[in-house]
Amino acid sequence: MVRARTNDLNLVERAAKVLPAGVYGHHSVGMLPSGYPQFFGRAVGARLWDVDGNEYIDYLCGYGTNLFGYGFEPVEQAAAEQRRLGDTMTGPSALMVELAEAFVDMVAHADWAMFCKNGSDATMIALMTARAHTGNATVLVADGAYHGAMPWCTPRQVGVIPADRAHVVTYRYNDAASLRAAFEAHRGDVAAVFAAPYRHDVYADQEDLDLDYAQTARELCDASGALLVVDDVRAGFRIARDCSWAHTGIEPDISAWGKCFANGHPISAVLGNDKARKAAADIYVTGSYWFSAVPMAAALATLRQIRETDYLEKMIVQGQRLRDGLDRQAADQGFALSQTGPAQMPQILFRDDPDFVIGFNWAQLCIEHGVYFHPFHNMFLSHAHDGTVVDETLRRTGMAFEALRGSHARLSEGETSALKRRIAERAASSD
Amino acid sequence: MVRARTNDLNLVERAAKVLPAGVYGHHSVGMLPSGYPQFFGRAVGARLWDVDGNEYIDYLCGYGTNLFGYGFEPVEQAAAEQRRLGDTMTGPSALMVELAEAFVDMVAHADWAMFCKNGSDATMIALMTARAHTGNATVLVADGAYHGAMPWCTPRQVGVIPADRAHVVTYRYNDAASLRAAFEAHRGDVAAVFAAPYRHDVYADQEDLDLDYAQTARELCDASGALLVVDDVRAGFRIARDCSWAHTGIEPDISAWGKCFANGHPISAVLGNDKARKAAADIYVTGSYWFSAVPMAAALATLRQIRETDYLEKMIVQGQRLRDGLDRQAADQGFALSQTGPAQMPQILFRDDPDFVIGFNWAQLCIEHGVYFHPFHNMFLSHAHDGTVVDETLRRTGMAFEALRGSHARLSEGETSALKRRIAERAASSD
Repeated sequence: MVRARTNDLNLVERAAKVLPAGVYGHHSVGMLPSGYPQFFGRAVGARLWDVDGNEYIDYLCGYGTNLFGYGFEPVEQAAAEQRRLGDTMTGPSALMVELAEAFVDMVAHADWAMFCKNGSDATMIALMTARAHTGNATVLVADGAYHGAMPWCTPRQVGVIPADRAHVVTYRYNDAASLRAAFEAHRGDVAAVFAAPYRHDVYADQEDLDLDYAQTARELCDASGALLVVDDVRAGFRIARDCSWAHTGIEPDISAWGKCFANGHPISAVLGNDKARKAAADIYVTGSYWFSAVPMAAALATLRQIRETDYLEKMIVQGQRLRDGLDRQAADQGFALSQTGPAQMPQILFRDDPDFVIGFNWAQLCIEHGVYFHPFHNMFLSHAHDGTVVDETLRRTGMAFEALRGSHARLSEGETSALKRRIAERAASSD
Repeated sequence: MVRARTNDLNLVERAAKVLPAGVYGHHSVGMLPSGYPQFFGRAVGARLWDVDGNEYIDYLCGYGTNLFGYGFEPVEQAAAEQRRLGDTMTGPSALMVELAEAFVDMVAHADWAMFCKNGSDATMIALMTARAHTGNATVLVADGAYHGAMPWCTPRQVGVIPADRAHVVTYRYNDAASLRAAFEAHRGDVAAVFAAPYRHDVYADQEDLDLDYAQTARELCDASGALLVVDDVRAGFRIARDCSWAHTGIEPDISAWGKCFANGHPISAVLGNDKARKAAADIYVTGSYWFSAVPMAAALATLRQIRETDYLEKMIVQGQRLRDGLDRQAADQGFALSQTGPAQMPQILFRDDPDFVIGFNWAQLCIEHGVYFHPFHNMFLSHAHDGTVVDETLRRTGMAFEALRGSHARLSEGETSALKRRIAERAASSD
């Protein structure tokens, strides 16, 4: 199936001149198969169109920001109403208080909220609060976890100096003994333990939260005075209508939120308990657009949808239907998938595919058939991914699997060897 | 003149429960006279209404974000058109390339652009790029300058650890010898020199850029390989239609931009030259909303207004009219103002007012008469601050000056002594 590429390739060429290396960060398609479009023209519900008019069913959902569907009317209407009054003004609107009240009501561990823009702002505020609260410097983070793209945590250490990481110590996620050893090695200086809601690392099967690990984290923090931070930026409100650890009964002191709680409008948040309140009050953090009213109106409308609809249950059902259907299709064509993580945040890898070549070939075929999957990053369903959308997805992936069986060599030889080299380097660097 | 306060005070009380200490950051009115409203209901053109319906002519302009007037139709229309297509998607739209091209065309020193959300993101990217480019750690910043609210630069050091500041070295702005000494003391390890376009510190008369200082900064960077960064987040496009140093002929390697270039829509930017390109390409920075299309549409429309209208010349004329009028009114009532900075970014202090009591009393009176001034931070005009608005401002400030002569004791005794204590502490800490 040949798809038009002219507009995208032209833009990529222009971008290479006026951006340092084209599109950067998590929106760069530089690490993806060459068939992935870089630029998009339109998005509605669960679907995206690239700048050449090719349509995709989108399982990245703006990397999680799209929870109820692109252009979801109840949220857009609330945003439009506030926009007529004011957005970025010389102070906040009343919505800032209403939003903090609504958020604190929904998240059991939270007594207060702060709003910011990036997920990285939220994790930075959590870290500064923990350091202010404890007077300690050390932060314990799980090896391979992503907590943002600031010098203290960005995954590529270029432009990062040793001082930025001097007090960042890693432990193994879900490994209580490893966490205990890290605490012991930095006894008396631990400010915070950062934990993802579950292990959602790239290039890897996802892992459910181990309760012993979570309980150990809580106990070590309680014993030492350090703060426990759950980074819910990626998974927030796709696991629960509360903090993603709510089902365990284990409460963090602080949680970091972003992405989806305003359905794509730019806002992130930090929630904390009373223990952390004074420290959060004492730090100085701010941003030019942190008090803007329109994203807060969108967030209030989104939180209402989260509370009042069965979006979560429906996403789980449809995610499971997709998962089951893909497993059947793979088996029919002689492949075995490793599908992990919550069904509504699927990670789809191939078994026996150590250098990801099969997965990349399949992802490329899915793109050609109009399904936007990611070959190594967890994905996201939205409430707009209903039965019809999943049925259509499976029709398209069925064709992709057939083509995959017909020929593994969807990637060019050059692409395949570059991918193998990258995966080998990655494996070596994580030793 | 008694103004309604009920709604504002109720919200302040509610905010104290669900935000750590009420509104935080630069939008907190905690450091301002008690008459300042905290929450706003509406904004149009040059005017704001608080949540009790009181109207103000606004000289903060969303702390600079409002360049053409709140709700400026040409920008809002461009944003609305893009909003119908898509905002935060799984990748950028073509507008990202168009915006980078437009920005690079307008700013002489720039060969490339990157977009982000906060001003602090832009200065962080500049710093990481300089460290990646040089392999050095030290950053030289002017004492008292504001470059954002991240651990490396936030003005209050709570939650900041020594490692965050280990390589941050201060020099005196406009003092070539001081900059030279800082370079000498860290010879071989300077990554970047940060400079504001002119000295726009809080609580102080503003200072024009000294050409010898600027030239020295350029020469020292050229000789050492360090990068020169002009932080234009606050003043960008209010001094020039180019980098604010353009009139000097001295070009930075990197400039940081934010606030006004999308007329209040959330976006910031880093611009750099080819020397800094590879380093900027190599760092990993990103954010959930950095690629959103609507703020880019708003930015393109705003840049067009900047290029094609006489907004800048008109802001300068009206700023000067305001300045002249205030000087006359002050003199008529026996006061002497110290009005500094560009007329379109006025700083208004009182002479012989070391503890700021007169200025705070006057600011309080201006608020009561419907003029939103700031007693210690530079202010901003917008293109919507036309002759009619300035005339109305002066009618109101005339009443404020009369009342000020009638009684200095507009602030309560408690407020006055708290202010004196704060100013004394501030003076002591800057010794």
